[in-house]
Amino acid sequence: MLAELIMVGTELLLGEVIDTNSAYLAQRLAELGVDLYYVSRVGDNRKRIAQLIQQAHQRADLVIISGGLGPTADDLTKEAAADAFGLELVLCEDALAEIEEHFHRLGRSMSENNRRQAYLPAGGKALSNPKGTAPGVLLELPEGKAVIMLPGVPVELKAIMEDSVIPYIRQVLGEENGAVIYSRILRFYGLGESAIDDMVQDIIAAQTNPTIAPYAGSGEVRLRITAKAANECEAIELIEPVEKQLLERLGPYFYGYGDEGLEIVVSRLLLAQKQTVAVAESCTGGLISHKLTNVPGSSGYYMQGAVTYSNAAKTAVLGVDPQILAEHGAVSGQTARAMAEGVRKWAGTDIGLSVTGIAGPGGGTAAKPVGLVYFGISYPGGTKAFRRQFAGDRLLVKQRTALAALDILRRHLLGILEEGLED
Amino acid sequence: MLAELIMVGTELLLGEVIDTNSAYLAQRLAELGVDLYYVSRVGDNRKRIAQLIQQAHQRADLVIISGGLGPTADDLTKEAAADAFGLELVLCEDALAEIEEHFHRLGRSMSENNRRQAYLPAGGKALSNPKGTAPGVLLELPEGKAVIMLPGVPVELKAIMEDSVIPYIRQVLGEENGAVIYSRILRFYGLGESAIDDMVQDIIAAQTNPTIAPYAGSGEVRLRITAKAANECEAIELIEPVEKQLLERLGPYFYGYGDEGLEIVVSRLLLAQKQTVAVAESCTGGLISHKLTNVPGSSGYYMQGAVTYSNAAKTAVLGVDPQILAEHGAVSGQTARAMAEGVRKWAGTDIGLSVTGIAGPGGGTAAKPVGLVYFGISYPGGTKAFRRQFAGDRLLVKQRTALAALDILRRHLLGILEEGLED
Repeated sequence: MLAELIMVGTELLLGEVIDTNSAYLAQRLAELGVDLYYVSRVGDNRKRIAQLIQQAHQRADLVIISGGLGPTADDLTKEAAADAFGLELVLCEDALAEIEEHFHRLGRSMSENNRRQAYLPAGGKALSNPKGTAPGVLLELPEGKAVIMLPGVPVELKAIMEDSVIPYIRQVLGEENGAVIYSRILRFYGLGESAIDDMVQDIIAAQTNPTIAPYAGSGEVRLRITAKAANECEAIELIEPVEKQLLERLGPYFYGYGDEGLEIVVSRLLLAQKQTVAVAESCTGGLISHKLTNVPGSSGYYMQGAVTYSNAAKTAVLGVDPQILAEHGAVSGQTARAMAEGVRKWAGTDIGLSVTGIAGPGGGTAAKPVGLVYFGISYPGGTKAFRRQFAGDRLLVKQRTALAALDILRRHLLGILEEGLED
Repeated sequence: MLAELIMVGTELLLGEVIDTNSAYLAQRLAELGVDLYYVSRVGDNRKRIAQLIQQAHQRADLVIISGGLGPTADDLTKEAAADAFGLELVLCEDALAEIEEHFHRLGRSMSENNRRQAYLPAGGKALSNPKGTAPGVLLELPEGKAVIMLPGVPVELKAIMEDSVIPYIRQVLGEENGAVIYSRILRFYGLGESAIDDMVQDIIAAQTNPTIAPYAGSGEVRLRITAKAANECEAIELIEPVEKQLLERLGPYFYGYGDEGLEIVVSRLLLAQKQTVAVAESCTGGLISHKLTNVPGSSGYYMQGAVTYSNAAKTAVLGVDPQILAEHGAVSGQTARAMAEGVRKWAGTDIGLSVTGIAGPGGGTAAKPVGLVYFGISYPGGTKAFRRQFAGDRLLVKQRTALAALDILRRHLLGILEEGLED
C-alpha cells in the first residue's frame, strides 16, 4: 500500500506551528509497512487543497489529510475533498448526534458552526472523535483507493488514527495479504546516543531483518527493532534474539518498552512492592509529583508531596536544619539528604525522594553553576545523596532532573542503586 | 513573489526526524513578504525529486530545496535539479577550494565523496557554507525564476539562508518593490474556537488586510492578525485598529500576546503587585506549581506548595476539617475552599490557590464524573470556590485544570474574578 499525506493549515505555511502530526503519521504508517513517497503542506485554500487531493489520489492508494475540519469558515478540507471528487456535502445524523452528545456532556451549548462539522462528502463515513467535536472522515473510492480526513489538533488526530484508521488499514492490508512490519522499542536511561551507538554498532551493522535504529529523546535513548514478516508472531520471533543480544551489553541502562516512560515503570515497581513515596522538590517545582501522578492509580503509592522552593519552606515543612543550609547551602548533598529524610517523616511514607538544584537562567556561580542538582533518597535502611550536572535551559534542566530522580527511585526499588556521595 | 519549499530526505518520510527547517524557512519568507502556497516532502529518490522540482518551478517564482546535498550516494538533490532542467553537473573550482579549506581548518583529510559536493548544475552559483562542507546552490532560470538548494542540517541551512539567500531575495524584491507580512497573535482563555468565531465572524469576514485567523490550542484559542504592508510600521498601523475592534468584544477572555502562556502573564501580575501565592493541588498532582516555577524569577512570588493527594494529607497538611470531607467529599466546593484557606495559612502567602477533582480514568460516579474539578482561591478579602467540568483523558484533564486555575488567579489579580459558588 502506498500512502500520501496532506497537511492543511495556513499557520503551517507561516511557520508559526511546527508540524508534528506528519512525523507521527509517518511513523505509524512505517510500522504498518505502508510506503510513503510524498508529504505536502498547503494553506486554507479550497482550490489548492482540492488540487492536491486529486494529485495525491492519482499517485497513492491512501491519502490522509490532516487539518481543516474545525468549525470555522477557514476550515475547508471536506469542501475541497467534495470538489476533488465531484461530491455534495450531506448531513451525517450519527456525527451530529455525537457532536451534540459531546456538548451535552460538557454542559455547554452547541453553536451553529459545530453543526457544520457533521456534514461529510456524500458516501463518506464519520470516524468517531473521542477527544473533540470534529469527526474524522473515511471516503472509500473506486479501485480500492481511499481518502481519510483527520482533525489537525494532535490529540484528536492521534485518537482517531489509533481507534479507527489503523484498524481500517490493518483490515485492508490483511485483505491484500501483505507483510507486516512490527517494531519493538527499548528504552534506556543514563547513556547518550553516541555512547549506545558505540557499544552496539557491530550488532546494528550486522542486522538486516530486523533492523535496529537508535533515537535520542529528551534525556533518554530508544532503540527501535523493526522486523518484516508474514505476521506479527513471526516478526516477534525475529526480534527476540536481537533484543537479547542488545540487552546483554546495555542491560544496566535498559528500563522499559514502547511508550512507557520512567514514571510508569516506577509506579509498577512501587505497587508491586507495596511501597509508598513522598517527594520534596525544589528546582523541579512540582514536576516529579506531576509525573508520578500522571499514572492512573497513583493514589496507591503517592499520598502527598511538597514543593519547598525557599529555604524557609525547607526548614518549616521538612525540618531541614538551618545550620545545614547556612553551612552547605540549599544546593548541596547535605540539604538533599535532609530534605529526603524530612519529607519521608512529614508524609509518613516508606521512601522520601528529594531534589535541590539551580534550574537557571539566574542563580548560578562558578562553584555551583546552572544545571547543578543534588538528589536525596531516604528509606528504612538509610539515606543517600547524588550529584548531577545538566546542560540546557530552565525547562530542560527541570525535565532532566525529574527523569534522573525517577531513575534513582527505580534503581533503589530494583536494589541496584549505587552508593551515594560520601558527605 | 511566490515561493515553494521542497524538503528532501527519506528520514522525514519515516517520521524519524521532525522537520523544523520548513517552519524556519516559512517564517523568514513570511517576514520578507514572500507568499508560500505549498511545502512538499519527498524521499531520497532522484526521479521523484526531479518531478517535484519541475512542478514547483511551474507554480512558483522561487523554489527552495532543503536536504540531499551531503557527500553520500543517497544525496541526490543536485542531480535531480540537473535532470529537471536538462543540465550537466560541472565542477565549481571556488566551491572545491572552500571545501578543501574547511577540511584543512579542521586538520582532517578530505574524502573523494566530499569532492562530489563541489559539482553544481551548469550555470549554478555556489553559496558559501560557513558551518559545513556542502555549499548551497543558486540556480537562476528564465522569466526571473530561481531554484535554491540548501543542506538539510539546520545550522548550515540557517547560516546560508541568512548570509546569502535572504540578501538575494531582498535584492530581487527591491527590484519588485515588495511588501512585508507582519503578524500579531492574541491569546484567549475561557471560550471555545467556535464561540469566538461566532462573536467576531463579521469582523473576520470584513477584513482583507489585515486578515484574521483563529486557531485552537490545548484549552485556549489564538487569533492571528496578519497585515501586508510596505514595512513593519505600516503593518502595525493596519493591525492596531482591528485588534481594538476584536478586544471590544472579546476583552474579558483576552489574556496575552504571542508565545506568552498564562503562567507568564500571571507571574508578571504577581511580581508587579508584590503578591505571593501558594498552591494546594490534588488532581493536578504538582502541575500548577510546575507551571508557576517554569517562569524565571518565580522565587519572587512562589515559596512553597503542597500536593495533597489523599484525604489524610488534606487534613494533616492543610487542616481541612475531616467533617467537611465526610459530608461533602474531597471533590467539592467546600473542600476546595478549605484547601485554599489551609495552604495560604500553611505557607504564609497573600493568596492560596487550590484544585481538587477527578482526573480519571477511574474514580468517577454519576454525580461526580471524571473531569469534574473544584477550584478554591483564598485572599485577604475572602475565599471563593468554582466548579468546572472538563473532557479528555487523565493528562488533558490535568492540563486543562492547571490552565483554569492559572486563569482564576489571573482574574483575581486583575479584580475581574466572578462570584464563586454559593455553598
